Amino acid sequence: MRQSKRGDVDPFIVMDVMEAARQAEEAGRHIIHMEVGQPGTGAPEAAKQKLIGDMATPLGYTVALGLPELRQRIAQHYGDWYNVDLDPRRVVVTSGASGAFLLAFSALFDNDARVGLGTPCYPSYRQILKAVGLTPVDIKTSLENRFQPRPEDVASNDLDGLIVASPANPTGTMLGNAALSDLAAACQAHGAAFVSDEIYHGVDYDVAPVSALQVTDEAYVVNSFSKYFSMTGWRVGWMVVPEDHVRQVERLAQNMFICAPHAAQRLAFHAMDCGAELDAFKEVYKANRDLMIEGLKAAGLGKFAPPDGAFYVYVDVSDYTDDALSFAAEILEKVGVAVTPGLDFDSRRGHHWLRFSYARSTADITEGLERLAAFMKERG
Amino acid sequence: MRQSKRGDVDPFIVMDVMEAARQAEEAGRHIIHMEVGQPGTGAPEAAKQKLIGDMATPLGYTVALGLPELRQRIAQHYGDWYNVDLDPRRVVVTSGASGAFLLAFSALFDNDARVGLGTPCYPSYRQILKAVGLTPVDIKTSLENRFQPRPEDVASNDLDGLIVASPANPTGTMLGNAALSDLAAACQAHGAAFVSDEIYHGVDYDVAPVSALQVTDEAYVVNSFSKYFSMTGWRVGWMVVPEDHVRQVERLAQNMFICAPHAAQRLAFHAMDCGAELDAFKEVYKANRDLMIEGLKAAGLGKFAPPDGAFYVYVDVSDYTDDALSFAAEILEKVGVAVTPGLDFDSRRGHHWLRFSYARSTADITEGLERLAAFMKERG
Repeated sequence: MRQSKRGDVDPFIVMDVMEAARQAEEAGRHIIHMEVGQPGTGAPEAAKQKLIGDMATPLGYTVALGLPELRQRIAQHYGDWYNVDLDPRRVVVTSGASGAFLLAFSALFDNDARVGLGTPCYPSYRQILKAVGLTPVDIKTSLENRFQPRPEDVASNDLDGLIVASPANPTGTMLGNAALSDLAAACQAHGAAFVSDEIYHGVDYDVAPVSALQVTDEAYVVNSFSKYFSMTGWRVGWMVVPEDHVRQVERLAQNMFICAPHAAQRLAFHAMDCGAELDAFKEVYKANRDLMIEGLKAAGLGKFAPPDGAFYVYVDVSDYTDDALSFAAEILEKVGVAVTPGLDFDSRRGHHWLRFSYARSTADITEGLERLAAFMKERG
Repeated sequence: MRQSKRGDVDPFIVMDVMEAARQAEEAGRHIIHMEVGQPGTGAPEAAKQKLIGDMATPLGYTVALGLPELRQRIAQHYGDWYNVDLDPRRVVVTSGASGAFLLAFSALFDNDARVGLGTPCYPSYRQILKAVGLTPVDIKTSLENRFQPRPEDVASNDLDGLIVASPANPTGTMLGNAALSDLAAACQAHGAAFVSDEIYHGVDYDVAPVSALQVTDEAYVVNSFSKYFSMTGWRVGWMVVPEDHVRQVERLAQNMFICAPHAAQRLAFHAMDCGAELDAFKEVYKANRDLMIEGLKAAGLGKFAPPDGAFYVYVDVSDYTDDALSFAAEILEKVGVAVTPGLDFDSRRGHHWLRFSYARSTADITEGLERLAAFMKERG
């Protein structure tokens, strides 16, 4: 049967790493997982117990924009965290951040529209854009700019839209108030849509991240319950859109998704009142980050921008290899630490980079860093 | 901010009906719901209890194609129900049938591809196609053909793909072995993809529905846990694809969805062993159908094709009105029965049609039919 060109997206290299790690574990080895982008923790316990109570009655479809009480609670969250007064009607509950991107791209772009991404970046932006008939445009960023795009990139690439992420994956860097504001203004001046991925908000350390909503109402802001709220696997997120876009997004959501998973929406609502448990998870990431920064430097893997948020360090390993894929395979083989080669995030320069995740337990991170130090020492 | 043309999809008229019904209930009226397409029952009780047990450990991401044991169990289901020997590797667990369509369209079609729909049909086919930059092509069907497309429609409309549904929404009609086989062959001859929507399988009465997999491997078969399995709101379904499409669909699923909701996948796995409870739900629909066929005829609303499956009757009301929207509003206003005007399913001819759902309790159906009879009598 026919197959499409748009569907011919790149493979996820991290999946091959995960499969190799799984096979090693099956063979009896103890593997340290620094390749995965998901917390080892689950949803907050109190929230889970409340959901179990909710499950006594059938959880049918919700309205397409999401449970009204959840939209209200998310709006309140913008007051609590950012001092932004947000109309709950602008909040759209989505089937994860993935669902938010699918909705946003349909609402904003027509066939072949050019949408910019500062590379290295989360690989699925590029693949989703391609899968729905749009044109991803790679914008090469630099360590000096902490891997973030610059306002002049919008016009010079003749973009119809720009996606930014802060804190970013794989680099963990953030955009401050002025940088976000300048990028939003550049988009507006060029008639480009501005999409701000804020899924790692709450997983931040020294400085509070800035939401695009603090600098403009003319943005699509994407967020998720998978990271700070530790609800990976439940597939629920949200999006905030300009007021005059709500009706169109609602119609698209009705047709493309019907609704986000009802149980996940309830769990999310309950999880938003579990701040103490969630902040304890964050303390683990913070301790892990400090260990990572020191441990990687000590191992001779010190070429990186220290992460402001998220749970990744993106390291330049060009002093040691021109083939990050083999380098990652060698680390897994020799010392049993799974890491992600940079090619998923940056197809042109990723062969010189590795991403290390520190989302798992502090004991694992300590053990992983010892193994990495031994590997580098052995390698000489 | 910019908005797309592709995103400018039609509103769902049934949503306005539901809102009007909700307002009437808020004002204290007792409304009979014949507008909704969801069972009033929830997930099977035993399955829910098992899920609660599973929730003791974190439910993180699953692999993109779904839990291996669920894919295996779905493959076995094709043996049990259809005597088809299906390789579990061809099964893709999806975020509802909605997610299956998004995946299928990305895997099969490039920008502006022409995809045929026999109208009247489920409105979201059309809107999803438009939302992802493809061209829906309405194929006008007739009561004589029981509202199903014919093989010759593929070439005469120069289609790149055809979507069929059996049992169909809104008409409840089915395609037999020969009809499915002829449509699949017509698609293959024209190089068009064949997509078979089988989400109402299991909600059938006198004759067992035929799966496209019984007549060809060259099809995308879409199914859902929302109808027979009564798991509306959990957002989980599945798709069976040709063997040589699995890898591409997997890559798309990794990027577009990461995975279907994990809890829903577990619940679905457990629900597949709750046949007795689910068959009892079906007995209710069967009793309701018999009441509907008699009751609608007795009320003077007898122009329809008796439904083979699903839980809808699609009735030609052109003897009474040229404006089904007002007619539906009048029924709601005068006797408190919510029904769906045909315009959602067929923009050209729907003003002469109404869809009546019988998914709710038999007591509600009985009461609803009495009210409809009174309305028609009063109207004269």
